[in-house]
Amino acid sequence: MGLVVQKYGGSSVADAEGIKRVAKRIVEAKKNGHQVVAVVSAMGDTTDELIDLAEQVSPIPAGRELDMLLTAGERISMALLAMAIKNLGHNAQSFTGSQAGVITDSVHNKARIIDVTPGRIKASVDEGNIAIVAGFQGVSQDTKDITTLGRGGSDTTAVALAAALDAEVCEIYTDVDGVFTADPRVVKKARKIDWIAFEDMLELAASGSKVLLHRCVEYARRYDIPIHVRSSFSGLQGTWVSSEPVVRKTQQQGDKQVEQALISGVAHDTSEAKVTVVGVPDKPGEAAAIFRTIADAEINIDMVVQNVSAASTGLTDISFTLPKTEGRKAIDALEKNKGAIGFDSLRYDDQIGKISLVGAGMKTNPGVTADFFTALSDAGVNIELISTSEIRISVVTRKDDVPEAVRAVHSAFGLDSDSDEAVVYGGTGR
Amino acid sequence: MGLVVQKYGGSSVADAEGIKRVAKRIVEAKKNGHQVVAVVSAMGDTTDELIDLAEQVSPIPAGRELDMLLTAGERISMALLAMAIKNLGHNAQSFTGSQAGVITDSVHNKARIIDVTPGRIKASVDEGNIAIVAGFQGVSQDTKDITTLGRGGSDTTAVALAAALDAEVCEIYTDVDGVFTADPRVVKKARKIDWIAFEDMLELAASGSKVLLHRCVEYARRYDIPIHVRSSFSGLQGTWVSSEPVVRKTQQQGDKQVEQALISGVAHDTSEAKVTVVGVPDKPGEAAAIFRTIADAEINIDMVVQNVSAASTGLTDISFTLPKTEGRKAIDALEKNKGAIGFDSLRYDDQIGKISLVGAGMKTNPGVTADFFTALSDAGVNIELISTSEIRISVVTRKDDVPEAVRAVHSAFGLDSDSDEAVVYGGTGR
Repeated sequence: MGLVVQKYGGSSVADAEGIKRVAKRIVEAKKNGHQVVAVVSAMGDTTDELIDLAEQVSPIPAGRELDMLLTAGERISMALLAMAIKNLGHNAQSFTGSQAGVITDSVHNKARIIDVTPGRIKASVDEGNIAIVAGFQGVSQDTKDITTLGRGGSDTTAVALAAALDAEVCEIYTDVDGVFTADPRVVKKARKIDWIAFEDMLELAASGSKVLLHRCVEYARRYDIPIHVRSSFSGLQGTWVSSEPVVRKTQQQGDKQVEQALISGVAHDTSEAKVTVVGVPDKPGEAAAIFRTIADAEINIDMVVQNVSAASTGLTDISFTLPKTEGRKAIDALEKNKGAIGFDSLRYDDQIGKISLVGAGMKTNPGVTADFFTALSDAGVNIELISTSEIRISVVTRKDDVPEAVRAVHSAFGLDSDSDEAVVYGGTGR
Repeated sequence: MGLVVQKYGGSSVADAEGIKRVAKRIVEAKKNGHQVVAVVSAMGDTTDELIDLAEQVSPIPAGRELDMLLTAGERISMALLAMAIKNLGHNAQSFTGSQAGVITDSVHNKARIIDVTPGRIKASVDEGNIAIVAGFQGVSQDTKDITTLGRGGSDTTAVALAAALDAEVCEIYTDVDGVFTADPRVVKKARKIDWIAFEDMLELAASGSKVLLHRCVEYARRYDIPIHVRSSFSGLQGTWVSSEPVVRKTQQQGDKQVEQALISGVAHDTSEAKVTVVGVPDKPGEAAAIFRTIADAEINIDMVVQNVSAASTGLTDISFTLPKTEGRKAIDALEKNKGAIGFDSLRYDDQIGKISLVGAGMKTNPGVTADFFTALSDAGVNIELISTSEIRISVVTRKDDVPEAVRAVHSAFGLDSDSDEAVVYGGTGR
């Protein structure tokens, strides 16, 4: 039995009862013969409450100090969790991000992990302790200041530690049963996915699935650490995310390999807006000027589409999507450079939604794209933008059409839980 | 203008308003040309709330984890204070005890400072920053674990940093105006002391005065760091505690040295109980056996008195006082060793109080002791135990007599605020 890294989110440790429940769960893994490192987030709403306090003393809290403040949150939950475990008769020690060797760059509030030196954690578990580690936090390599990793940072801490400790698996405990073929709040017949490849999970995360963050999956893929997303409220198997299909023991058939589905799932995202730059001269360098302006404003964009230019005018339109929260900044930046770029006008539309179909199967199955468009068309959904990768196809529609579109696509590809079998194409998948 | 260390207690930073007020005060000192290092406690009741949480998950929280938990308290207050200062347009950086170089032994929950290596603090203030440091916490030299210094630990942090940084003064901001000649809640006419020598302050602290803890004064004396105890709610001068009388500029007389009073003040303490060991054989080794038993139980005792033995029986009684909280433990330990020690019975009395008169003047003025007993006698207060040092005399009385006894002594030695002058003896004081 090797080492497992478990991660518990804020909702799992929201109060003393939650902490005691998580403590029992951790002790079980230890009793089963594993070395256990548990990464924990701040309790429930602690982080939001601390941000409230910060805003009471300063309208724009300094980054370094905000990180110092917010890291108090995990300090509280991890110490309490270690106490609760000791109370169950097992040795536990809590460690801050800094003590756990989570080394980051110096970008406060959204630092990136650049190294993990888990010497103290390793020594602690080798002595027989359960190590509890603060998620979300690290220490800057250059300034030795405390940093935080931004939203979802605890998942990344867990995966990074699992990689550095060469763990068997990184278990991400959450309040849902795993990764689903679609958001169960939108699609009642969504199915839990037993196994999904890193690549498909990355596309789902990039397309609006909230269960795992893109950054965390990226990290796990780079170091080939299997992730097991599961509920902290049940003992059920959740979703495995890894490079190779997991093997399950079944009583009837002996070892059984979980198979790769052709289509992994349908994701949607209504947090983006669309900007259209109207009347752009159709000549080299124009698009570059627009996207240089956007990049200089430090805005990440998602989909980009350039219309075919009208021969009569020599002008074209360029549309792109971006997070709604960046909308104002993008418009301001473009307006400021209107003369230099050369365009007629800007249109801003925040009533859009994006629907994405993700699956390794579409690489070898050209029919997938056609079926996708047919499903949308049959549901009466109009398509405004299209973007594809090797294993994903995304469209932008009216925001109001999103739920119906997601359900239609989910059903058309046989993903509904009462379908006997997923749609099978001639290809082999991968 | 040199460096000043300021310390703000939990009541001064109980909420966002308090933090903003303290921030202004710190910035004033900076504007006056000082380098400023501010040590801060946890906000208001934070520490008690965290202890509550700990008790919800574990009846006896592990020491290492309790320290990890409690240190979240100062982390919050110091980060908020740094933000509030930055919001006033001044640069500030917060530092944990560990970052500030507060190195301690490994005794969790009541660690002792064994070294201070304030390199980061020094660099920060030399760059023009105001440094905010978490009080009450440090890092163990041996285990690198986070430690706390116990009750009143933030004062000790401040004095230790002041010593390590060679500060001009260590200002302890609190919710009273300074050190008084008696507890103002008991003696309405108590006077604020302008200056008091370390030795007298040590005796007052040991005798029940709560303003400064013994340990903190001891540290300041060892490194000769002047302490200025003052209110965080007013701009008034408070009480200076130092080895040499402070010099004040006055408009009328030019420089004026504050004079040493013969008597510094009257302290009282009702937190102790008295244990009497009855019927002890009056022979060598008996007292040793008793106090070895007490010491082995790790109980600190205060006063000890052995009665003259009755010639007829060859038996004597030995009484001692100790904190009430240790009473049960002491009785149990003595009963357990009753056979080995050899005594008749034990009496336990928690209805006692201690009144102490402190002043360097009594060294050279034998009349002080007589006047002290006369004052008590005139007030009808019966004396049960007596103990003296070179600059202190303490008596144990009935607990109910304490307020009246304190007022009588305070008045007899001319300490009342409406007295024209303190009582003057023939001696010179010191």
